[in-house]
Amino acid sequence: MKTFCITMGDPAGIGPEIIVKALMQLQEQEDTGSLRIFSIGCRDALEHAAEKLGGGKPRVIRAPEECSGLDLSILPVEENLPAPQPGQVSVEGGIFAFRAVEEAVRLALESRIDGLVTAPLNKAALNRAGYAYAGHTDMLADLTETQNTVMMLAHGSFRVTHLSTHVPLSEVPRLLTEERLDHVLTLTFEALKRLGIRHPRVAVAALNPHGGEGGLFGREDLDVSQPVIERWQHDGHDVHGPVPGDTVFVKLRGQMFDAVVAMYLDEGHVPFKLLGFETDIRTGTWESMHGVNVTLGLPIIRTSVDHGTAFDIAGDGIANADSLIEAIDYARHLAGLC
Amino acid sequence: MKTFCITMGDPAGIGPEIIVKALMQLQEQEDTGSLRIFSIGCRDALEHAAEKLGGGKPRVIRAPEECSGLDLSILPVEENLPAPQPGQVSVEGGIFAFRAVEEAVRLALESRIDGLVTAPLNKAALNRAGYAYAGHTDMLADLTETQNTVMMLAHGSFRVTHLSTHVPLSEVPRLLTEERLDHVLTLTFEALKRLGIRHPRVAVAALNPHGGEGGLFGREDLDVSQPVIERWQHDGHDVHGPVPGDTVFVKLRGQMFDAVVAMYLDEGHVPFKLLGFETDIRTGTWESMHGVNVTLGLPIIRTSVDHGTAFDIAGDGIANADSLIEAIDYARHLAGLC
Repeated sequence: MKTFCITMGDPAGIGPEIIVKALMQLQEQEDTGSLRIFSIGCRDALEHAAEKLGGGKPRVIRAPEECSGLDLSILPVEENLPAPQPGQVSVEGGIFAFRAVEEAVRLALESRIDGLVTAPLNKAALNRAGYAYAGHTDMLADLTETQNTVMMLAHGSFRVTHLSTHVPLSEVPRLLTEERLDHVLTLTFEALKRLGIRHPRVAVAALNPHGGEGGLFGREDLDVSQPVIERWQHDGHDVHGPVPGDTVFVKLRGQMFDAVVAMYLDEGHVPFKLLGFETDIRTGTWESMHGVNVTLGLPIIRTSVDHGTAFDIAGDGIANADSLIEAIDYARHLAGLC
Repeated sequence: MKTFCITMGDPAGIGPEIIVKALMQLQEQEDTGSLRIFSIGCRDALEHAAEKLGGGKPRVIRAPEECSGLDLSILPVEENLPAPQPGQVSVEGGIFAFRAVEEAVRLALESRIDGLVTAPLNKAALNRAGYAYAGHTDMLADLTETQNTVMMLAHGSFRVTHLSTHVPLSEVPRLLTEERLDHVLTLTFEALKRLGIRHPRVAVAALNPHGGEGGLFGREDLDVSQPVIERWQHDGHDVHGPVPGDTVFVKLRGQMFDAVVAMYLDEGHVPFKLLGFETDIRTGTWESMHGVNVTLGLPIIRTSVDHGTAFDIAGDGIANADSLIEAIDYARHLAGLC
């Protein structure tokens, strides 16, 4: 048995309703017998969402050990605080979001749960509540006293890890160091092996167009990435590259690799979101939201949905739970539950 | 009537065979009555490809005015030079490639043809032959004495223009100037209007992740792009942005814009090739090649296939002519032939 906790994120977002939907859908799957899942966050918001979606009344638990399966159960935080209005940025929303993650991290560090799956929070609400984090990843690094985490996006077998993330593009070239690339490759291989891939095939995406074309358009790929890749190859690893950005993701989609190391946020995010997201041409809204965000390098397992709070549709009961279901699926695989 | 010329590129590549295939396919279309197309290049290579593919014997013409429609006709260059072996880099291949483009540009500048469509050349062969160009775009800029061209990639209504192309990533931030962005927007709007779009909707992609998140991850989007976009909006144009790279292409695919201005080569090429190219999972080879490369800012119309010489399959008769057909289609639309 493995136990996972879903942190609700901002209760004013789509968190409560996608939790209810995801659990209702998981209950119908046949392969979930060894899975226990509960949520942490605002009790009122979950009760409200469950009522609206016909999910029954959530069971209130006081410890993860009380969680028995996939019935809708919640470990409440801040029970005296009023639930925020759906779609509104509020101090309360930020407090609920932070406290849920803080509690879940504590349980994970005590090995009382096997990992956490995070629903989206709102950064403005978080900051209004006095928590000066740029987002979940910052917060998790701080709460677990970790540095040098690596962001992985995954959808099925399309997996991208990122050498750098939320920095100006002008700083990216100097962040490409042998040490950092080594670290990212180490965590990428480790994650792929945890996912059950015995001999992972990893491509390192190029920094410069055409991989720098032999140094003509930049030397970083030749001077930094190439020697690291050769060393890994020499050590018996299936590492390729630097592969030009404009073809490496076509090859990844064609299953020629198990993951790609992208050099900067958009290099990895552009192809990922293009494959995972759709817009409805008539309304201009997002139609489906696939994809999981995994933080590698933490002492705990953490996966996340790859979308925001969607305040514009929060409370309407129409939010799509696909990404949350996939995030749960990735968490169980990372925990060795195949 | 409009007359277009296809330059053969390197005769040792797939140029000859995709020319034969494209013309055979175009002959069967109903809407090609006002179209005249001939090729320029190595006569022997075209005859060989036509024989192999059952396309009949090419007609040799000595002037574009002799071209009568879509029958396979060739204006030969360097008739005393032997045709290169398929799949081989050679001095001859480079000479044929250059001379064909040189001749086609001369005819276009004299208004004897309405535009040129280029098949791929091999840069190594070109350089061996003594022509020190990085590719077609360089060569065309030189032959037409033009500066500041803009690369557009197009596949159906998915169109991307590029603020910068073959430069190190580290140089990209300082290439984003108000003057250059103005120029790219001007050429982008002009091209879209030529394509028959009365009120083009154009998005400027962000340089930095999340568009710089209010200056936190870089200020170029705020300081350079934003004022230019506002000025264009003030002048009554439908310009959006800076839109973060990771969502702007999902929106472009969702037809919320008619084109996106990308800041650097891979920002535009990664999503473009992901949508246009496929790999065959079993063999690892490219399966289909869609997409057109259009050079904006030249005094002549020039479109191109968006793939290389494919020396590995040249001469086998299996190359896919989709990209060439689409390049011809874009050329006729740019010339006002709808």
